[in-house]
Amino acid sequence: MPEYRLIYFDAMGRAELVRWIFAMADIAYTDERVSSEDWPERKKSIPGGKLPVLMVDDKVLRQSMAIARYVAREAGLVPQDNLEAAFCDSLVETVSEILLHLHKIMRTTEDQQERNTKIEQELIPNYVEPFFTSLDSQIQDHEWYFGDQVTWADLMIGRAFCTMVLTNEDLFNKFPAVRSYVEKVCALPGIQDWIQNRPQTTF
Amino acid sequence: MPEYRLIYFDAMGRAELVRWIFAMADIAYTDERVSSEDWPERKKSIPGGKLPVLMVDDKVLRQSMAIARYVAREAGLVPQDNLEAAFCDSLVETVSEILLHLHKIMRTTEDQQERNTKIEQELIPNYVEPFFTSLDSQIQDHEWYFGDQVTWADLMIGRAFCTMVLTNEDLFNKFPAVRSYVEKVCALPGIQDWIQNRPQTTF
Repeated sequence: MPEYRLIYFDAMGRAELVRWIFAMADIAYTDERVSSEDWPERKKSIPGGKLPVLMVDDKVLRQSMAIARYVAREAGLVPQDNLEAAFCDSLVETVSEILLHLHKIMRTTEDQQERNTKIEQELIPNYVEPFFTSLDSQIQDHEWYFGDQVTWADLMIGRAFCTMVLTNEDLFNKFPAVRSYVEKVCALPGIQDWIQNRPQTTF
Repeated sequence: MPEYRLIYFDAMGRAELVRWIFAMADIAYTDERVSSEDWPERKKSIPGGKLPVLMVDDKVLRQSMAIARYVAREAGLVPQDNLEAAFCDSLVETVSEILLHLHKIMRTTEDQQERNTKIEQELIPNYVEPFFTSLDSQIQDHEWYFGDQVTWADLMIGRAFCTMVLTNEDLFNKFPAVRSYVEKVCALPGIQDWIQNRPQTTF
C-alpha cells in the first residue's frame, strides 16, 4: 500500500469525499490541512498551485474527482463493469454540481438569513428536489445506489446530504425513502466514526 | 457491441471529446445533433434535461466526462493501471477547465475583437501557458502523454488545441515540442479524417 497524504484547506469542500472513501475503506492517510495564513507560501510548492492534491508516495495526483475515483477504485468502491462504473461517475458529477451551487451561495452570500432564503428558494427546488425525485426511483428496489454493493456514489450522496437530512425536515418529509437511504449511508461504520470525530468546519 | 447514440447540440462543446474517441477507435455511433429550435420540445424527453447524453442501447448515460471516460475505456484508451488512469482523469479535468474558460469568453463576449483580446490577455497567460509549460516537460521523453500508448488524455489535448495550433503561431513558437505533439495527435488516422469531415461549427 503506498503512503497517502491528502493536502487541502481546513474545510470539507472538494476533499471531503476523498476523506469519506478513506474512512469507509479504513485506509491510512495523512489528512494535511493548510491554514489560510500558510497558503500563499505553501502554494509555491504545490504543482499547479491548487488544492486538493493527493501525494501517492512521491507522486502528485491533482483534481478532486480524479483523486476520489482513484482512491475509490483502490478501496473496491467502483463497480467492475465499465458501464456501471460510468453510471457511478455520472451520479458523482451530478451531485458535485449541486454542491458547487451550494458553495457558490455560501461564498457569495454572507448573511445567514439570506443564505437560507437562497437555499430554500433556488437550490432546493431547482437542483435538490429534481435529483431526489430521480434518486427516489433509483433506490426503490436496491439496498444501495447500485444494487447490493456500496460504491463511492453512495458516499457522495451521504457526503452531500448528511447535514441537510438533520436540518431540513420539510424537504426530507417529501422524500422518506431518500431520508432512510441517506441516514443508512451516514451510519456505515467507518463513516459514522468519521462524521463524529472529524474536525468541525462550516463547509 | 451495444448501439450508441450520442445526443448533443450542433456544436463541439462538451460532446466533441466523445466524438474524437469514437473516431480514434473506429466505433460506430449515431451523432445526433439537436437544433436550437427543436431543443425546448426535445428537452422534455431527455432525462435530467441536459445534453450531452449517450444512449447505450436503451440505457441513458449522462454527464460528458462520464460518457467520455466510459467510451475511452471501451476503446482501450484508458491505462489499465489505476494510478495511471487517475493521471489521465486529472489531465482531462485540467484541460476541460481551460476549455470552460474559453467557452465562457465565447458566451459572454460577442465582439470578435474583444474575444481575441480576452483570449490573448487572460486565457493564454493565466491558463494555457502554465499548462503548456507542464505539458512540455511531461512529453519530453515520451511518444505520447503516457509513454508509448495513445490514451484519451492525448485526444483531450488535441481536441482542445487543434485549432489554436493553426491560428496562434506566436504562442506555439514558445512551445515547439507542444506544437509537434498537438500536430501528431491531430494527424492520428481516425482523428485526421474526423477533423476533415466533421460538421463545421464555431465551438
